[in-house]
Amino acid sequence: MMRRPDSLKGILIDLAGVLHVGDDLLPGADQALSRLRATGLPLRFLTNTTRTSRREVVALLQSLGLDIQTHEVLTAALATRKLLQNQGLRPYYLIHPNIEEDMGECDPNPNVVVLGDAGDGFTYAHMNAAFRLLMQGLPLVAMARNRYFREGSGLSLDMGAYVSALEYSSGVTAQIVGKPARSFFETALVDIGVLAQNAVMIGDDVTDDVGAAQKAGIAGILVRTGKFRPGDDQLPHIQPTVVADDFTEAVAHLLAWLR
Amino acid sequence: MMRRPDSLKGILIDLAGVLHVGDDLLPGADQALSRLRATGLPLRFLTNTTRTSRREVVALLQSLGLDIQTHEVLTAALATRKLLQNQGLRPYYLIHPNIEEDMGECDPNPNVVVLGDAGDGFTYAHMNAAFRLLMQGLPLVAMARNRYFREGSGLSLDMGAYVSALEYSSGVTAQIVGKPARSFFETALVDIGVLAQNAVMIGDDVTDDVGAAQKAGIAGILVRTGKFRPGDDQLPHIQPTVVADDFTEAVAHLLAWLR
Repeated sequence: MMRRPDSLKGILIDLAGVLHVGDDLLPGADQALSRLRATGLPLRFLTNTTRTSRREVVALLQSLGLDIQTHEVLTAALATRKLLQNQGLRPYYLIHPNIEEDMGECDPNPNVVVLGDAGDGFTYAHMNAAFRLLMQGLPLVAMARNRYFREGSGLSLDMGAYVSALEYSSGVTAQIVGKPARSFFETALVDIGVLAQNAVMIGDDVTDDVGAAQKAGIAGILVRTGKFRPGDDQLPHIQPTVVADDFTEAVAHLLAWLR
Repeated sequence: MMRRPDSLKGILIDLAGVLHVGDDLLPGADQALSRLRATGLPLRFLTNTTRTSRREVVALLQSLGLDIQTHEVLTAALATRKLLQNQGLRPYYLIHPNIEEDMGECDPNPNVVVLGDAGDGFTYAHMNAAFRLLMQGLPLVAMARNRYFREGSGLSLDMGAYVSALEYSSGVTAQIVGKPARSFFETALVDIGVLAQNAVMIGDDVTDDVGAAQKAGIAGILVRTGKFRPGDDQLPHIQPTVVADDFTEAVAHLLAWLR
């Protein structure tokens, strides 16, 4: 269990399952966000969603009445693009066509296999092509390894399944770029100039949002919306700083801390 | 390391990668099999291939000049069918259309998820449907969990990848029916009325053929054909009874034992 920050200076927030589910705003999330904005604290929104470009993510959020600017949204896809560019890597992509605008094209002579949530693009032929490159010795970079996400009324299979699939057959271990990678949280903190001990992360994924933030020294608030399942708040190895029914209640806690 | 049987009374043989690769006979395999037949020892052929019905498997083998009868071939698919029938289970199938003749149809009200090597049928939509059933509490039965198989000049992704994928996201552990399940080997031994200590298994998969057979008390011969990769014969935890360059050399060893 991690205590709440003595001095709260910055807030990290997951998007899908916390503020919205698909095209639907979660009730009250827009008003709660406005109350949080009134504190003047810097915010960053961290998403592992890799089926949508950042431009489309922001357009959706704004259409739902959420006060969020492009530069405040950190996506696992863009973090991956930066990693590839910094290291001069040539990717073989297994990604969703929607994020090609963020990622650029496959290299004809790749030296790294890069996995996003390809969705319907996870065909056997694509998976086998990635497998064969891994067997030639290429490393594997994955934007995320989430187990599932909430989609409308049900849970849907997320890209972590396909990361596990390739790891199992190739024997290669993936490097994860988005949550739960510590570097992803740290990039957001550097961006707003806030120390981990003065920050809090709000998310619906007890492992990849809350547990991972706490491993990076950031307090974690779990919300009971989105992919939350009964029992997620009772895990022996992850004890959220706070468990809130939804984003509105999470914000109420934060405002109380600031008083 | 497991010693060779003092008294050899029955022989179990893997098919793909040992006698043939795809539509090609491995050199000399037909003649070596004839020499083995001349001993009069009972043989059973154990295959985890679940992209092909038993009828088609046998037709291919016979077209390659291999002296093999239908009742001698045990497939992971048919063993799965028997398991389902014995327990009165209603399957949701994620299998290859080629084996529908062995497996029957999906049940409209399933109580078990059954995975074969669906090949191109491993679409995201099918995987997500299986995932959702697992999240409702259905158990997972997998015909095999092989990592890869040899196809023409290269290795290809096998169904074990997809078993791992569903296990990871659902948290459900699959029950495996084919190799390396001990029951699969034992069924073959019962079929020919031979004790494990008097039997030998010949395969190209050091883990699922050789290691698994040895766990069931059966001596294991590894052949350096098919999916064999350099180093497979040097694993610290699996020491084959014999390592042979190919099926011909494996048979030469067996004939020497019988002298």
